[in-house]
Amino acid sequence: MKRDEALACVKKQLTEARYTHTIRVMETAIELANRFGADVNKAEIAAIFHDYAKFRPKEEMKQMIISEGEALDVLDFHPELWHAPAGAILVKKEAGITDEDVLSAIKYHTSGRPNMTLLEKVIYVADYIEPGRSFPGIEEVRTLAETNLDLALIQALKNTIIFLLTKNQAVFPMTIATYNTLIKQ
Amino acid sequence: MKRDEALACVKKQLTEARYTHTIRVMETAIELANRFGADVNKAEIAAIFHDYAKFRPKEEMKQMIISEGEALDVLDFHPELWHAPAGAILVKKEAGITDEDVLSAIKYHTSGRPNMTLLEKVIYVADYIEPGRSFPGIEEVRTLAETNLDLALIQALKNTIIFLLTKNQAVFPMTIATYNTLIKQ
Repeated sequence: MKRDEALACVKKQLTEARYTHTIRVMETAIELANRFGADVNKAEIAAIFHDYAKFRPKEEMKQMIISEGEALDVLDFHPELWHAPAGAILVKKEAGITDEDVLSAIKYHTSGRPNMTLLEKVIYVADYIEPGRSFPGIEEVRTLAETNLDLALIQALKNTIIFLLTKNQAVFPMTIATYNTLIKQ
Repeated sequence: MKRDEALACVKKQLTEARYTHTIRVMETAIELANRFGADVNKAEIAAIFHDYAKFRPKEEMKQMIISEGEALDVLDFHPELWHAPAGAILVKKEAGITDEDVLSAIKYHTSGRPNMTLLEKVIYVADYIEPGRSFPGIEEVRTLAETNLDLALIQALKNTIIFLLTKNQAVFPMTIATYNTLIKQ
Protein backbone atom coordinates (compact mmCIF):
# COMPACT_ATOMS: atom_id res chain seq x y z
CA MET A 1 0.00 0.00 0.00
CA LYS A 2 1.22 3.50 -0.86
CA ARG A 3 1.71 6.11 1.87
CA ASP A 4 -1.11 8.41 0.70
CA GLU A 5 -3.62 5.61 0.50
CA ALA A 6 -2.60 4.30 3.93
CA LEU A 7 -2.79 7.74 5.51
CA ALA A 8 -6.23 8.39 3.98
CA CYS A 9 -7.37 5.05 5.39
CA VAL A 10 -6.27 5.72 8.99
CA LYS A 11 -7.28 9.38 8.98
CA LYS A 12 -10.95 8.35 9.09
CA GLN A 13 -10.29 6.26 12.22
CA LEU A 14 -8.50 8.89 14.28
CA THR A 15 -8.93 12.25 15.95
CA GLU A 16 -6.87 15.07 14.50
CA ALA A 17 -4.41 14.95 17.40
CA ARG A 18 -3.97 11.21 17.04
CA TYR A 19 -3.52 11.59 13.27
CA THR A 20 -0.71 14.13 13.65
CA HIS A 21 0.86 11.82 16.27
CA THR A 22 0.66 9.06 13.66
CA ILE A 23 2.46 11.21 11.08
CA ARG A 24 5.23 11.90 13.59
CA VAL A 25 5.53 8.19 14.48
CA MET A 26 5.77 7.44 10.74
CA GLU A 27 8.57 9.95 10.25
CA THR A 28 10.42 8.71 13.35
CA ALA A 29 9.96 5.05 12.37
CA ILE A 30 11.39 5.71 8.88
CA GLU A 31 14.36 7.45 10.47
CA LEU A 32 14.96 4.55 12.89
CA ALA A 33 14.46 1.94 10.16
CA ASN A 34 17.09 3.66 8.01
CA ARG A 35 19.43 3.98 10.97
CA PHE A 36 19.18 0.39 12.19
CA GLY A 37 18.60 -1.46 8.91
CA ALA A 38 14.91 -2.35 9.20
CA ASP A 39 12.62 -2.53 6.17
CA VAL A 40 11.69 1.11 5.60
CA ASN A 41 8.46 0.42 3.70
CA LYS A 42 7.19 -1.95 6.37
CA ALA A 43 8.15 0.54 9.08
CA GLU A 44 6.18 3.25 7.26
CA ILE A 45 3.04 1.13 6.91
CA ALA A 46 3.21 -0.30 10.45
CA ALA A 47 3.63 3.20 11.88
CA ILE A 48 0.73 4.59 9.87
CA PHE A 49 -1.58 1.82 11.07
CA HIS A 50 -0.25 1.35 14.63
CA ASP A 51 -3.12 3.23 16.33
CA TYR A 52 -5.83 2.21 13.85
CA ALA A 53 -8.06 0.70 16.58
CA LYS A 54 -7.39 3.42 19.18
CA PHE A 55 -10.93 4.83 19.18
CA ARG A 56 -12.93 1.65 18.79
CA PRO A 57 -15.33 0.89 21.64
CA LYS A 58 -13.77 -1.23 24.38
CA GLU A 59 -16.44 -3.89 24.03
CA GLU A 60 -15.74 -4.24 20.29
CA MET A 61 -12.00 -4.61 20.92
CA LYS A 62 -12.66 -7.13 23.66
CA GLN A 63 -14.90 -9.30 21.48
CA MET A 64 -12.36 -9.14 18.68
CA ILE A 65 -9.55 -10.33 20.95
CA ILE A 66 -11.77 -13.09 22.35
CA SER A 67 -12.77 -14.27 18.88
CA GLU A 68 -9.11 -14.31 17.81
CA GLY A 69 -8.56 -16.58 20.82
CA GLU A 70 -5.00 -15.58 21.62
CA ALA A 71 -3.37 -13.08 23.99
CA LEU A 72 -6.55 -13.24 26.08
CA ASP A 73 -4.60 -12.31 29.22
CA VAL A 74 -4.44 -8.72 27.95
CA LEU A 75 -8.15 -8.44 28.80
CA ASP A 76 -7.28 -8.66 32.51
CA PHE A 77 -5.20 -5.51 32.14
CA HIS A 78 -5.76 -1.86 31.26
CA PRO A 79 -7.97 -1.36 28.17
CA GLU A 80 -5.30 1.06 26.89
CA LEU A 81 -3.39 -2.09 25.93
CA TRP A 82 -6.22 -3.56 23.85
CA HIS A 83 -5.97 -1.33 20.80
CA ALA A 84 -2.67 -2.91 19.79
CA PRO A 85 -3.82 -6.54 19.34
CA ALA A 86 -7.26 -5.31 18.20
CA GLY A 87 -5.54 -3.03 15.69
CA ALA A 88 -3.60 -5.91 14.16
CA ILE A 89 -6.84 -7.84 13.70
CA LEU A 90 -8.76 -4.87 12.23
CA VAL A 91 -6.01 -3.71 9.92
CA LYS A 92 -5.91 -7.15 8.37
CA LYS A 93 -9.68 -7.33 8.03
CA GLU A 94 -10.50 -3.76 7.02
CA ALA A 95 -7.36 -2.43 5.35
CA GLY A 96 -6.20 -5.68 3.78
CA ILE A 97 -2.75 -5.59 5.37
CA THR A 98 -1.49 -9.17 5.38
CA ASP A 99 2.24 -8.71 5.95
CA GLU A 100 2.92 -10.60 9.19
CA ASP A 101 5.90 -8.39 10.07
CA VAL A 102 3.72 -5.29 9.87
CA LEU A 103 0.86 -6.91 11.77
CA SER A 104 3.09 -8.07 14.63
CA ALA A 105 4.66 -4.60 14.90
CA ILE A 106 1.14 -3.19 15.38
CA LYS A 107 0.13 -6.01 17.73
CA TYR A 108 3.04 -5.55 20.15
CA HIS A 109 3.51 -1.79 19.99
CA THR A 110 2.20 -1.16 23.53
CA SER A 111 3.26 -4.29 25.41
CA GLY A 112 6.40 -5.41 23.65
CA ARG A 113 7.10 -9.14 23.74
CA PRO A 114 10.14 -11.31 24.40
CA ASN A 115 12.42 -11.59 21.37
CA MET A 116 10.92 -8.66 19.47
CA THR A 117 11.73 -8.36 15.78
CA LEU A 118 13.72 -5.37 14.57
CA LEU A 119 10.57 -3.88 13.04
CA GLU A 120 8.64 -4.31 16.32
CA LYS A 121 11.42 -2.49 18.16
CA VAL A 122 11.43 0.33 15.60
CA ILE A 123 7.67 0.91 15.98
CA TYR A 124 7.72 0.63 19.78
CA VAL A 125 10.55 3.14 20.12
CA ALA A 126 9.23 5.47 17.39
CA ASP A 127 5.86 5.61 19.17
CA TYR A 128 7.66 6.41 22.42
CA ILE A 129 10.05 9.12 21.20
CA GLU A 130 8.17 10.87 18.37
CA PRO A 131 8.86 14.61 18.70
CA GLY A 132 5.39 15.46 20.02
CA ARG A 133 5.96 13.43 23.19
CA SER A 134 7.11 15.12 26.36
CA PHE A 135 7.50 13.35 29.67
CA PRO A 136 10.23 12.68 32.24
CA GLY A 137 13.01 10.46 30.94
CA ILE A 138 12.16 10.78 27.25
CA GLU A 139 15.33 12.70 26.34
CA GLU A 140 17.46 9.84 27.60
CA VAL A 141 15.56 7.43 25.34
CA ARG A 142 15.91 9.82 22.37
CA THR A 143 19.66 10.03 22.93
CA LEU A 144 20.01 6.24 23.19
CA ALA A 145 17.94 5.82 20.00
CA GLU A 146 20.55 7.78 18.09
CA THR A 147 22.99 4.89 18.44
CA ASN A 148 21.46 1.81 20.06
CA LEU A 149 17.88 0.66 19.51
CA ASP A 150 17.95 -2.05 22.20
CA LEU A 151 19.20 0.31 24.90
CA ALA A 152 16.53 2.84 23.90
CA LEU A 153 13.90 0.12 24.09
CA ILE A 154 15.09 -1.08 27.52
CA GLN A 155 15.00 2.48 28.86
CA ALA A 156 11.51 3.07 27.41
CA LEU A 157 10.28 -0.16 29.02
CA LYS A 158 11.83 0.79 32.37
CA ASN A 159 10.27 4.26 32.26
CA THR A 160 6.88 2.76 31.39
CA ILE A 161 7.01 0.17 34.19
CA ILE A 162 8.11 2.74 36.77
CA PHE A 163 5.38 5.12 35.60
CA LEU A 164 2.76 2.39 36.07
CA LEU A 165 4.10 1.51 39.53
CA THR A 166 4.03 5.12 40.69
CA LYS A 167 0.42 5.36 39.47
CA ASN A 168 -0.52 2.12 41.29
CA GLN A 169 -1.45 0.56 37.98
CA ALA A 170 -0.99 -3.07 37.02
CA VAL A 171 2.04 -3.97 34.91
CA PHE A 172 1.32 -6.29 31.98
CA PRO A 173 3.46 -9.42 32.54
CA MET A 174 4.60 -9.53 28.89
CA THR A 175 6.14 -6.08 29.32
CA ILE A 176 8.25 -7.37 32.22
CA ALA A 177 9.11 -10.47 30.17
CA THR A 178 10.23 -8.17 27.32
CA TYR A 179 12.47 -6.20 29.69
CA ASN A 180 13.86 -9.37 31.32
CA THR A 181 14.69 -10.91 27.94
CA LEU A 182 16.45 -7.78 26.70
CA ILE A 183 18.64 -7.23 29.77
CA LYS A 184 19.72 -10.88 29.77
CA GLN A 185 21.02 -10.50 26.21
CA MET B 1 9.63 -25.73 68.50
CA LYS B 2 10.60 -23.29 71.25
CA ARG B 3 12.29 -19.99 70.40
CA ASP B 4 15.64 -20.86 72.03
CA GLU B 5 15.88 -24.20 70.28
CA ALA B 6 14.97 -22.60 66.93
CA LEU B 7 17.49 -19.79 67.36
CA ALA B 8 20.25 -22.23 68.30
CA CYS B 9 19.41 -24.23 65.19
CA VAL B 10 19.65 -21.30 62.74
CA LYS B 11 22.63 -19.68 64.45
CA LYS B 12 24.89 -22.43 63.13
CA GLN B 13 23.73 -21.70 59.57
CA LEU B 14 24.31 -17.95 59.56
CA THR B 15 26.96 -15.28 59.84
CA GLU B 16 26.77 -13.10 62.92
CA ALA B 17 25.34 -10.18 60.92
CA ARG B 18 22.67 -12.39 59.36
CA TYR B 19 21.84 -13.86 62.77
CA THR B 20 21.25 -10.42 64.32
CA HIS B 21 19.15 -9.53 61.24
CA THR B 22 17.14 -12.69 61.94
CA ILE B 23 16.54 -11.64 65.56
CA ARG B 24 15.26 -8.26 64.35
CA VAL B 25 13.00 -9.88 61.74
CA MET B 26 11.64 -12.14 64.50
CA GLU B 27 10.86 -9.18 66.76
CA THR B 28 9.28 -7.24 63.90
CA ALA B 29 7.28 -10.25 62.72
CA ILE B 30 5.87 -10.80 66.22
CA GLU B 31 4.91 -7.14 66.39
CA LEU B 32 3.17 -7.30 62.98
CA ALA B 33 1.48 -10.60 63.81
CA ASN B 34 0.05 -9.10 66.99
CA ARG B 35 -1.01 -5.96 65.14
CA PHE B 36 -2.73 -7.67 62.22
CA GLY B 37 -4.03 -10.85 63.86
CA ALA B 38 -1.63 -13.45 62.45
CA ASP B 39 -0.54 -16.50 64.44
CA VAL B 40 2.25 -15.14 66.63
CA ASN B 41 3.99 -18.48 67.23
CA LYS B 42 4.06 -19.29 63.54
CA ALA B 43 5.34 -15.79 62.75
CA GLU B 44 8.12 -16.26 65.30
CA ILE B 45 9.25 -19.62 63.89
CA ALA B 46 8.94 -18.54 60.23
CA ALA B 47 10.99 -15.40 60.92
CA ILE B 48 13.68 -17.34 62.77
CA PHE B 49 14.05 -19.79 59.90
CA HIS B 50 13.44 -17.45 56.95
CA ASP B 51 17.13 -17.13 55.95
CA TYR B 52 18.14 -20.67 56.97
CA ALA B 53 19.51 -21.50 53.48
CA LYS B 54 21.12 -18.09 52.86
CA PHE B 55 24.71 -19.34 52.91
CA ARG B 56 24.30 -22.69 51.22
CA PRO B 57 26.25 -23.11 47.99
CA LYS B 58 24.31 -22.06 44.88
CA GLU B 59 24.73 -25.47 43.28
CA GLU B 60 23.24 -27.20 46.34
CA MET B 61 20.24 -24.85 46.34
CA LYS B 62 19.79 -25.35 42.62
CA GLN B 63 19.81 -29.16 42.88
CA MET B 64 17.38 -28.99 45.79
CA ILE B 65 14.92 -26.85 43.82
CA ILE B 66 15.27 -29.15 40.79
CA SER B 67 14.66 -32.27 42.88
CA GLU B 68 11.60 -30.66 44.44
CA GLY B 69 10.39 -30.16 40.87
CA GLU B 70 8.39 -26.98 41.41
CA ALA B 71 9.08 -23.26 41.05
CA LEU B 72 11.85 -24.18 38.60
CA ASP B 73 11.49 -20.81 36.86
CA VAL B 74 13.27 -19.18 39.80
CA LEU B 75 16.49 -20.78 38.53
CA ASP B 76 16.40 -18.47 35.49
CA PHE B 77 16.59 -15.50 37.85
CA HIS B 78 19.04 -14.07 40.37
CA PRO B 79 20.45 -16.70 42.79
CA GLU B 80 19.58 -14.29 45.61
CA LEU B 81 16.02 -15.55 45.15
CA TRP B 82 16.93 -19.22 45.56
CA HIS B 83 17.49 -19.28 49.32
CA ALA B 84 13.77 -18.81 49.97
CA PRO B 85 12.41 -21.95 48.23
CA ALA B 86 15.60 -23.85 49.15
CA GLY B 87 15.14 -22.73 52.76
CA ALA B 88 11.62 -24.13 52.92
CA ILE B 89 12.90 -27.48 51.68
CA LEU B 90 15.87 -27.58 54.07
CA VAL B 91 13.98 -26.42 57.13
CA LYS B 92 11.55 -29.28 56.63
CA LYS B 93 14.33 -31.83 56.12
CA GLU B 94 16.90 -30.66 58.65
CA ALA B 95 14.92 -28.82 61.34
CA GLY B 96 11.78 -30.94 61.18
CA ILE B 97 9.45 -27.99 60.57
CA THR B 98 6.34 -29.40 58.94
CA ASP B 99 3.81 -26.61 59.41
CA GLU B 100 2.79 -25.66 55.86
CA ASP B 101 1.95 -22.07 56.85
CA VAL B 102 5.44 -21.58 58.21
CA LEU B 103 7.07 -23.31 55.24
CA SER B 104 5.21 -21.18 52.69
CA ALA B 105 6.11 -18.00 54.56
CA ILE B 106 9.78 -19.00 54.22
CA LYS B 107 9.33 -20.09 50.60
CA TYR B 108 7.82 -16.81 49.39
CA HIS B 109 9.69 -14.31 51.57
CA THR B 110 11.77 -12.88 48.70
CA SER B 111 9.43 -13.18 45.70
CA GLY B 112 5.98 -12.88 47.19
CA ARG B 113 3.21 -14.70 45.31
CA PRO B 114 -0.32 -13.85 44.23
CA ASN B 115 -2.85 -14.25 47.04
CA MET B 116 -0.31 -14.34 49.85
CA THR B 117 -1.46 -15.59 53.23
CA LEU B 118 -1.47 -13.22 56.18
CA LEU B 119 1.59 -14.99 57.62
CA GLU B 120 3.47 -14.70 54.31
CA LYS B 121 2.74 -10.96 54.25
CA VAL B 122 3.93 -10.56 57.85
CA ILE B 123 7.26 -12.27 57.11
CA TYR B 124 7.78 -10.42 53.81
CA VAL B 125 7.16 -7.03 55.39
CA ALA B 126 9.07 -7.83 58.61
CA ASP B 127 12.11 -8.83 56.56
CA TYR B 128 11.81 -5.57 54.62
CA ILE B 129 11.35 -3.13 57.50
CA GLU B 130 13.30 -4.66 60.41
CA PRO B 131 15.07 -1.79 62.22
CA GLY B 132 18.54 -2.66 60.90
CA ARG B 133 17.49 -1.91 57.32
CA SER B 134 18.24 1.45 55.79
CA PHE B 135 17.52 2.34 52.18
CA PRO B 136 15.49 4.90 50.21
CA GLY B 137 11.75 4.52 50.68
CA ILE B 138 11.87 2.29 53.75
CA GLU B 139 10.39 4.89 56.12
CA GLU B 140 7.25 5.07 53.99
CA VAL B 141 6.85 1.28 54.26
CA ARG B 142 7.43 1.41 58.03
CA THR B 143 4.76 4.08 58.40
CA LEU B 144 2.27 2.11 56.28
CA ALA B 145 3.01 -1.04 58.32
CA GLU B 146 1.76 0.73 61.42
CA THR B 147 -1.78 0.60 60.11
CA ASN B 148 -2.11 -1.35 56.84
CA LEU B 149 -0.13 -4.48 56.02
CA ASP B 150 -1.29 -4.68 52.39
CA LEU B 151 -0.33 -1.09 51.62
CA ALA B 152 3.06 -1.67 53.25
CA LEU B 153 3.53 -4.80 51.16
CA ILE B 154 2.55 -3.03 47.92
CA GLN B 155 5.00 -0.22 48.64
CA ALA B 156 7.78 -2.70 49.49
CA LEU B 157 7.13 -4.57 46.22
CA LYS B 158 7.14 -1.32 44.24
CA ASN B 159 10.41 -0.20 45.84
CA THR B 160 11.98 -3.58 45.11
CA ILE B 161 10.87 -3.62 41.47
CA ILE B 162 12.06 -0.05 40.87
CA PHE B 163 15.38 -0.87 42.57
CA LEU B 164 15.88 -3.85 40.25
CA LEU B 165 14.98 -1.77 37.17
CA THR B 166 17.42 0.99 38.07
CA LYS B 167 20.14 -1.66 38.51
CA ASN B 168 19.29 -3.25 35.14
CA GLN B 169 18.43 -6.48 36.89
CA ALA B 170 15.70 -8.92 35.89
CA VAL B 171 12.41 -8.76 37.76
CA PHE B 172 11.01 -12.13 38.84
CA PRO B 173 7.58 -12.47 37.14
CA MET B 174 5.93 -13.74 40.34
CA THR B 175 6.88 -10.49 42.09
CA ILE B 176 5.02 -8.51 39.41
CA ALA B 177 2.11 -10.94 39.68
CA THR B 178 2.06 -10.36 43.45
CA TYR B 179 1.95 -6.60 42.96
CA ASN B 180 -0.71 -6.84 40.20
CA THR B 181 -2.93 -9.05 42.37
CA LEU B 182 -2.67 -6.73 45.38
CA ILE B 183 -3.44 -3.50 43.53
CA LYS B 184 -6.46 -5.07 41.84
CA GLN B 185 -7.93 -5.92 45.24
